[in-house]
Amino acid sequence: MRGFAMKKIGEVGWVEKEAPACGPLDAICRPLAVAACTSDIHTVYEGAVGERTDMILGHEAVGEIMEVGELVKDFKVGDKVIIPAITPDWGSLEAQRGFAQHSGGTLGGWKFSNFKDGVFAELFHVNEADANLALLPEGMDPAEATMISDMIPTGFHGVELAEVTYGEDVLVVGIGPVGLMAVAGSALRGAGRIFGVGTRPNCVALAKEYGATDIINYKDGPIAEQVMKLTDNKGVDKIIIAGGDVDTISNVIDCIIPGGIISNVNYLGSGEYVKVPREAWGVGMGHVRITGGLMPAGRMRTERLANILSNGRLDVSGMLTHKFEGLESLPEALELMNQKPKELIKPVVTFSYDD
Amino acid sequence: MRGFAMKKIGEVGWVEKEAPACGPLDAICRPLAVAACTSDIHTVYEGAVGERTDMILGHEAVGEIMEVGELVKDFKVGDKVIIPAITPDWGSLEAQRGFAQHSGGTLGGWKFSNFKDGVFAELFHVNEADANLALLPEGMDPAEATMISDMIPTGFHGVELAEVTYGEDVLVVGIGPVGLMAVAGSALRGAGRIFGVGTRPNCVALAKEYGATDIINYKDGPIAEQVMKLTDNKGVDKIIIAGGDVDTISNVIDCIIPGGIISNVNYLGSGEYVKVPREAWGVGMGHVRITGGLMPAGRMRTERLANILSNGRLDVSGMLTHKFEGLESLPEALELMNQKPKELIKPVVTFSYDD
Amino acid sequence: MRGFAMKKIGEVGWVEKEAPACGPLDAICRPLAVAACTSDIHTVYEGAVGERTDMILGHEAVGEIMEVGELVKDFKVGDKVIIPAITPDWGSLEAQRGFAQHSGGTLGGWKFSNFKDGVFAELFHVNEADANLALLPEGMDPAEATMISDMIPTGFHGVELAEVTYGEDVLVVGIGPVGLMAVAGSALRGAGRIFGVGTRPNCVALAKEYGATDIINYKDGPIAEQVMKLTDNKGVDKIIIAGGDVDTISNVIDCIIPGGIISNVNYLGSGEYVKVPREAWGVGMGHVRITGGLMPAGRMRTERLANILSNGRLDVSGMLTHKFEGLESLPEALELMNQKPKELIKPVVTFSYDD
Amino acid sequence: MRGFAMKKIGEVGWVEKEAPACGPLDAICRPLAVAACTSDIHTVYEGAVGERTDMILGHEAVGEIMEVGELVKDFKVGDKVIIPAITPDWGSLEAQRGFAQHSGGTLGGWKFSNFKDGVFAELFHVNEADANLALLPEGMDPAEATMISDMIPTGFHGVELAEVTYGEDVLVVGIGPVGLMAVAGSALRGAGRIFGVGTRPNCVALAKEYGATDIINYKDGPIAEQVMKLTDNKGVDKIIIAGGDVDTISNVIDCIIPGGIISNVNYLGSGEYVKVPREAWGVGMGHVRITGGLMPAGRMRTERLANILSNGRLDVSGMLTHKFEGLESLPEALELMNQKPKELIKPVVTFSYDD
Repeated sequence: MRGFAMKKIGEVGWVEKEAPACGPLDAICRPLAVAACTSDIHTVYEGAVGERTDMILGHEAVGEIMEVGELVKDFKVGDKVIIPAITPDWGSLEAQRGFAQHSGGTLGGWKFSNFKDGVFAELFHVNEADANLALLPEGMDPAEATMISDMIPTGFHGVELAEVTYGEDVLVVGIGPVGLMAVAGSALRGAGRIFGVGTRPNCVALAKEYGATDIINYKDGPIAEQVMKLTDNKGVDKIIIAGGDVDTISNVIDCIIPGGIISNVNYLGSGEYVKVPREAWGVGMGHVRITGGLMPAGRMRTERLANILSNGRLDVSGMLTHKFEGLESLPEALELMNQKPKELIKPVVTFSYDD
Repeated sequence: MRGFAMKKIGEVGWVEKEAPACGPLDAICRPLAVAACTSDIHTVYEGAVGERTDMILGHEAVGEIMEVGELVKDFKVGDKVIIPAITPDWGSLEAQRGFAQHSGGTLGGWKFSNFKDGVFAELFHVNEADANLALLPEGMDPAEATMISDMIPTGFHGVELAEVTYGEDVLVVGIGPVGLMAVAGSALRGAGRIFGVGTRPNCVALAKEYGATDIINYKDGPIAEQVMKLTDNKGVDKIIIAGGDVDTISNVIDCIIPGGIISNVNYLGSGEYVKVPREAWGVGMGHVRITGGLMPAGRMRTERLANILSNGRLDVSGMLTHKFEGLESLPEALELMNQKPKELIKPVVTFSYDD
Repeated sequence: MRGFAMKKIGEVGWVEKEAPACGPLDAICRPLAVAACTSDIHTVYEGAVGERTDMILGHEAVGEIMEVGELVKDFKVGDKVIIPAITPDWGSLEAQRGFAQHSGGTLGGWKFSNFKDGVFAELFHVNEADANLALLPEGMDPAEATMISDMIPTGFHGVELAEVTYGEDVLVVGIGPVGLMAVAGSALRGAGRIFGVGTRPNCVALAKEYGATDIINYKDGPIAEQVMKLTDNKGVDKIIIAGGDVDTISNVIDCIIPGGIISNVNYLGSGEYVKVPREAWGVGMGHVRITGGLMPAGRMRTERLANILSNGRLDVSGMLTHKFEGLESLPEALELMNQKPKELIKPVVTFSYDD
Repeated sequence: MRGFAMKKIGEVGWVEKEAPACGPLDAICRPLAVAACTSDIHTVYEGAVGERTDMILGHEAVGEIMEVGELVKDFKVGDKVIIPAITPDWGSLEAQRGFAQHSGGTLGGWKFSNFKDGVFAELFHVNEADANLALLPEGMDPAEATMISDMIPTGFHGVELAEVTYGEDVLVVGIGPVGLMAVAGSALRGAGRIFGVGTRPNCVALAKEYGATDIINYKDGPIAEQVMKLTDNKGVDKIIIAGGDVDTISNVIDCIIPGGIISNVNYLGSGEYVKVPREAWGVGMGHVRITGGLMPAGRMRTERLANILSNGRLDVSGMLTHKFEGLESLPEALELMNQKPKELIKPVVTFSYDD
């Protein structure tokens, strides 16, 4: 079978591989829709996860089941399913203590296009199908549903880690696709004022649609200063970091209240240290919690996120700025993510089959 | 001063009293808007809190400060403020363990029209002004802001006690004003499907506007059965009880999942026992949590709820179905709450002053 | 193979069965030590889980692995292991939302001697071995380790559900083996005063050893009254129910503070309703949480409980009042649990093999 | 009145001041026992809180009430009371959102010997007496009870922030008085293995008595490496930092599991940044939470901690290695804390009066 792969650091291209084998708990799918993700760019062009050879890319997909293992109970060939980016081992010790996404070790649940072939292929393999897949709800657009693979759960997880509650003021740093979902997720947790940091017009417009009340342009001065000014020196209750780099925390910590939470869902691809300013951190005693984590996944979670879309609480159509059709368009979609033209939010590729 | 009072169980009427005295931490306010509440009806006509003599009624108000105690730091005469229905003692042991609403004992933070004169008067007294008042935000309609005194915090607290999270299915029993706010509060916590139980057309329409996806008419059969049918026997994750009586829990428990929460914010005025069916409760081991609680209050909370309104996340204008003007209209507004005509949601009375 | 079974409601006896088959994820074990449990008595003599035919009894065991499925990675033949009473399906939706013990439905993780043959046999089957077994730590006595199967996790779970924290006063109703572990578990969560309700001298002595500061004899008057007297009408923060029946909650609720938690880990075998007194429950608004749940299990949990024993935080030797040797003694051990002589806490049976 | 004060950075000495005035909610006390704290040394000799002039030192005390304000309800002249180091304003917004210790701003509840005269004086002032004092339990030694002012709540708070649960392995960095209480507090939350980092023989012996199972000498190599070796590369669930400096987190983070918590209760007196290694922090996605906070206080908390001592769960007598009598011994006690002789844990000064 054919797949679009990372040949090595800095190089992408087509590969031809054997179709993946299906274990007793697994499923083999073909794609109905896939989306390209910035992580793929980090992986290929920055070598963020290290060297890889001929590893098929992609981890956001809706697919159709072509084969199931003999122990799979709840899915069958022909089912249309949402495939989360993260596919944990559910019997692992990490899953048992509530961190399935780290099954087998830190980030261990992230398999597609990390240490296993991804979804940019004619076929791909899903481990523990019963636990990791969710049926695509009747009538849901597969292209939109790809946002349930990674963008929605990652953005929403930033909100969960920040424990946003009714009426709290939230700062969302970065309003790319993940940040936009953090804005929407904050509104869907009843936040009060939501400050979004970003400049790209498409993103700014969508952030406002999703509930941002204030947009901050980092080019207008230090973010924390702008927030303090806008809040009459009160600061914000919570900060969600969905963009930036290892220095972002030190750039925003000055505007958080004691007892606040800074939650990171941004993959930090380079830099030696995240530096937390001692004084702004209350000399270690200010109850400013700093945390960050990979999105949770699993069928339960995925069904619940689909439930939010099905019931009209969130409209992700505005996220899909660039649409393509067919396997052959994968290189172009991915390259778009690399070039990041101003108007891009997410590129999505749909597939149709004659059979 | 003049106030509209419970003369004794079963009887209301005007009373003339001394203006309340202002202690060092307190404030004296005059009303700008007040709303009548079903609890006042329970109190007067069912004797739900026991006998009272000439106790002024009312506990939902926006007011203007006429006097402040010498230890009050953050408020001054002339400030327009939201007054929560519950006004705790913030130094109490209960407040220190997170249950300020029970300061001094169960429900002890509920003072207005319970064991202290309420807000249906020319003047009323607020204890611990710095801790219990919140400034009326610039431009907010006082009539609408009365919903922050009790209806929003009570309905939302049902959602908090139920720990509603992203994509969960929620059943809200009762869609009167508190239940409507429980529906809105569930949507503002990212619930998936929201089932509202009720029949009155005004309430049904508003429930849908606030995010209810399904309306259940209890006249069409047992609630739990209807829910199981609508969910393909899956049941709901959470149940919020905002109406009914001591038998309501036993009527709905059959449709909750193991690990679910039943949260009550309905004042249970009569009946000896809340009966929990042993088997439906998983023979005591099904992790179905049953809880219920009085709304939390305080300045922080009140500011946060106001923040939700100010930022356009919730529109309560539809709640105010009946509007009156001036002290003299209080009897009529209260009687409306007693008669409960079909189209009533909340009656509100506004006040204007020449000075 | 031979096993000691429930022949039907009211009758026990030996059965001869095929050795259990081992699926790809499973293990087959032989017993090294097993303990008898009151639930077995409920099951056989009260028909608490309904009719069963020739179902082998027993669910508390330490064993030796005789066979493993081909997908088992972390265990091998010859390993000595602790087998929890509850053996969930870890990929289930219930497990993914934190309630693995209810995988497949309420109490669904409870399989041994419920809807599958138990451990009172020459061989028994364990599903999802990697996720459900834990290695017996070097040097740990297998007889003592059987307390990790059910008594420790059940008693401790009562404490967890009650969210006992530093310095809180706790009432433990029932100081049989589960209640004793609730007492020990409360002390191991830093409780202040611990009131144990019971009368049997062995249990009273062990309760004190485990940290009970006060023993209440229910024969001396209503429990709640005694607690109120002992606490100068302050009451307790938390109540753990480890004995009694459907009326126990109504007998103790009068001595809990607003904001308190009543947690049940007692299998409620009969009665139609658990009755919660309306007024004592704060007319539904007193923040008295009522909850109850089956013990959590899994390898992670089991290893952690073993860790507590290995590090000398808890000594369960006093629990094992009656010791037997060999398969043939199972009827006597179980009958002891039925007769419940005054000095009994737990009967345990150990096994030795020539090979 | 006479008090022992910080004259300026680097200099201590006696001062003569007016007796403090008592506001309506306040109390004036004289000391029965006080203890010296490392923070006093940081304050005086490192200028950790900035310049201060003639500020009386000390914040750990048991006292006798000499005067109460007219609004104080629960205490009277002659009462013997425990005075927490932190005395919040309970009506503040911070208190209302659960962070009373930061009332008025970060660390704002820390008043004694920070921005108000401390307890090393003939008399001292306590704000909000009803909310901030706790009665010294009958029969409790005042010298031992001074450990409830700061050492116990600070050490235990490290455990609370780390959310230590049954059977978890915990690393406690620093086993001075706070670290010792973090060890004891971990055992009192049911931890499994507890690793204590330290070298001083007195502290090592007491750490073992309090429940440390392993002692790590940082001179024997990097702490994280030692932990990984001792745990077969499994690492620990939680890390509590009760000593060290801004570099400590980066020295230990390598031995924490994904989903772990690092909690700091060590005042970080100098250094620009706390540096968190990007990779060890799971590239920002490993769910390693980093937090730190000032001890919670208040009457409820203080009573609960006293409850732990009264019921024999914790014996702090071993902490009081150096005992003095009378006001005149304060300089010597404090200087001991400055010199930190090898055998020192805590110096305590008791007071007796003729009246």
